Amino acid sequence: MAKGLEGVIVDTSGICLIDGNAGRLIYRGYDIHDLAASLSFEEVAYLLWNGDLPNQRQLDELKARLSQERAIPANLKTAMRNLPLSSNTLDVLRTAISILGTGIPLKNPDMSDAVSIAAKIPTINAAFDRIRKGQELIDPRNDLSHAANYIYMLTGREPDPVKVDAVNKYLVLLADHEMNSSTFAARVVASTWSDMYSAITAAIGALKGPLHGGAPAPVLKMLETVGTPERAEEWMRNELKAGRRLMGFGHRVYRTTDPRAEILREIAGKTADRSLVQLARRVEEVGVRILQEHRPERKLYPNVEFYSAVVMHSVGLPSDLFTATFAASRCVGWTANVLEQVANNRLIRPQIEYTGPTNRHVVPMNQR
Amino acid sequence: MAKGLEGVIVDTSGICLIDGNAGRLIYRGYDIHDLAASLSFEEVAYLLWNGDLPNQRQLDELKARLSQERAIPANLKTAMRNLPLSSNTLDVLRTAISILGTGIPLKNPDMSDAVSIAAKIPTINAAFDRIRKGQELIDPRNDLSHAANYIYMLTGREPDPVKVDAVNKYLVLLADHEMNSSTFAARVVASTWSDMYSAITAAIGALKGPLHGGAPAPVLKMLETVGTPERAEEWMRNELKAGRRLMGFGHRVYRTTDPRAEILREIAGKTADRSLVQLARRVEEVGVRILQEHRPERKLYPNVEFYSAVVMHSVGLPSDLFTATFAASRCVGWTANVLEQVANNRLIRPQIEYTGPTNRHVVPMNQR
Repeated sequence: MAKGLEGVIVDTSGICLIDGNAGRLIYRGYDIHDLAASLSFEEVAYLLWNGDLPNQRQLDELKARLSQERAIPANLKTAMRNLPLSSNTLDVLRTAISILGTGIPLKNPDMSDAVSIAAKIPTINAAFDRIRKGQELIDPRNDLSHAANYIYMLTGREPDPVKVDAVNKYLVLLADHEMNSSTFAARVVASTWSDMYSAITAAIGALKGPLHGGAPAPVLKMLETVGTPERAEEWMRNELKAGRRLMGFGHRVYRTTDPRAEILREIAGKTADRSLVQLARRVEEVGVRILQEHRPERKLYPNVEFYSAVVMHSVGLPSDLFTATFAASRCVGWTANVLEQVANNRLIRPQIEYTGPTNRHVVPMNQR
Repeated sequence: MAKGLEGVIVDTSGICLIDGNAGRLIYRGYDIHDLAASLSFEEVAYLLWNGDLPNQRQLDELKARLSQERAIPANLKTAMRNLPLSSNTLDVLRTAISILGTGIPLKNPDMSDAVSIAAKIPTINAAFDRIRKGQELIDPRNDLSHAANYIYMLTGREPDPVKVDAVNKYLVLLADHEMNSSTFAARVVASTWSDMYSAITAAIGALKGPLHGGAPAPVLKMLETVGTPERAEEWMRNELKAGRRLMGFGHRVYRTTDPRAEILREIAGKTADRSLVQLARRVEEVGVRILQEHRPERKLYPNVEFYSAVVMHSVGLPSDLFTATFAASRCVGWTANVLEQVANNRLIRPQIEYTGPTNRHVVPMNQR
């Protein structure tokens, strides 16, 4: 019995490799450190979708397609205006992608679906953030990069290049991560020969969960609650004593620091207030130490959510857009995985071990 | 490597057992033949959710709750009116359930979610069917059973008891089926601690696929195309020769006739036109025979979709509501499985075997 499917290999894939012992993450053969150091999100999206880095012409073409696809249709804006203003941004995004999938005859997922979804998620996130604040929507600009346009649509201002760089690196780092739960949910859905929008809708629902993409906002809340470095140890010990989970530590696959956490820690050093960075470093250090006391059999390290929270806060994102922004990145991995699934498909249909009774007989109502 | 997870046991479960060799299907210890013979869908829903059949008081209480929950909110009706009239009914249902999940603070899935979703799916299906036909919506009636109210909301007429009985039996038969792809998708989503609406939205997307719940409409189309029993053999041989799949045959788990297909065949004998029944029997017989010639290593039998199509057509459902009606039944299994998942949760997160390159280096754009 493989509860949680830990260590179960569900398929072969040429997209992403995690070496959990060495703390390495590779997209299509390239180390995540190299990719984050110098590439745009658009180049990495091209890489994940196509298997190779683009040349200039290929990149220009993809950028043009993404820019053209950024605008969202009027019926979607209307639908978003009619949702409760208090809605979780992931519920809104899940609904928006589902709406975009209506009116399309059933077809196999293809690259045009992938490009359209990746182009529109930032627009959807920004639109709902402005709707709930009572602000006018801001149309996407096609002269800005994916990262810059996202900040522009949220704020209406020309974004600071340091922040754009931080958002771009964040988007690169989170774009794929092997067979994580949301990607797997997308592949399960696609394996029935369903469509891309159904698959991505499922992935968004999975990403929402606090055991997956829902962690960064609670991490920020933890940092805000701890308040100052000297309070970290007492507060964190009390949490563990009360049986609560410390958010932002540990990962199913990594046995050392998540390389994305290391890169995000560096980025945070450039974009975040010095006091927040110092607090985060202290909480990280205390967390690793007391979690090891608490559970000596397995050392837990900060995961990607931990410094994601610090970086996203530092570029001005409201905390309840953290996971929706994660989706703006991971949608590339989701769609790449769906395309890989359908190219060599087998229905994903496991079994359970039945532990209930087997030979009961229906008795009349008056004997129950 | 377990591509498709065939035979991989993902968890224990007390809900549903398939004995694929004996052709037996059991819900919570009761054989599907017994359940379909005498119970209402409401009783079976209670059984799947709670583990035991209800006594009269428990059943009355559940019926009252389901009746109260049938109406859908005005904002959902508005949203459905704004979707393309040509939309696939599963895309509409997926969107509707996603909308129902907005505005709710994140909480663990619970029984009230399950009851609300099961109560509303028939209302959503009927509402969209009437919207696209330009008809006024019909409010649910709380003096009718689940099955009768569904037909009433679709047609506006007091339903014929024979048809109500057929729909009720169909709903009972399809309500759960062990770790099928849509149920598994729901459990993957719920395993991240996401919410019930996210999980069911994922399940609907998976059910849509022609390898899963999307098959009955193509089965009906096949029967209509074949037209008469004497044309069956030539037409079906030509399909196989052309490399196309015969819809409605074969199942991952059953090695004999699906017991649900047998019961639905009997029901079809009572509700469908004699000519359609004769045609279906002939297509079944020819299909089993020529598929065995085609693939001698494994005998394929008609699956649940085959006679589902005949029964649903015979009670007057349009073919593009077949899968949405399947969802109206299976939602009970989905929600029961989600509740079981979260009661003893472990994140579902498998791995892949990476087959791509590993040591590539980013070269400057002008060298690509």
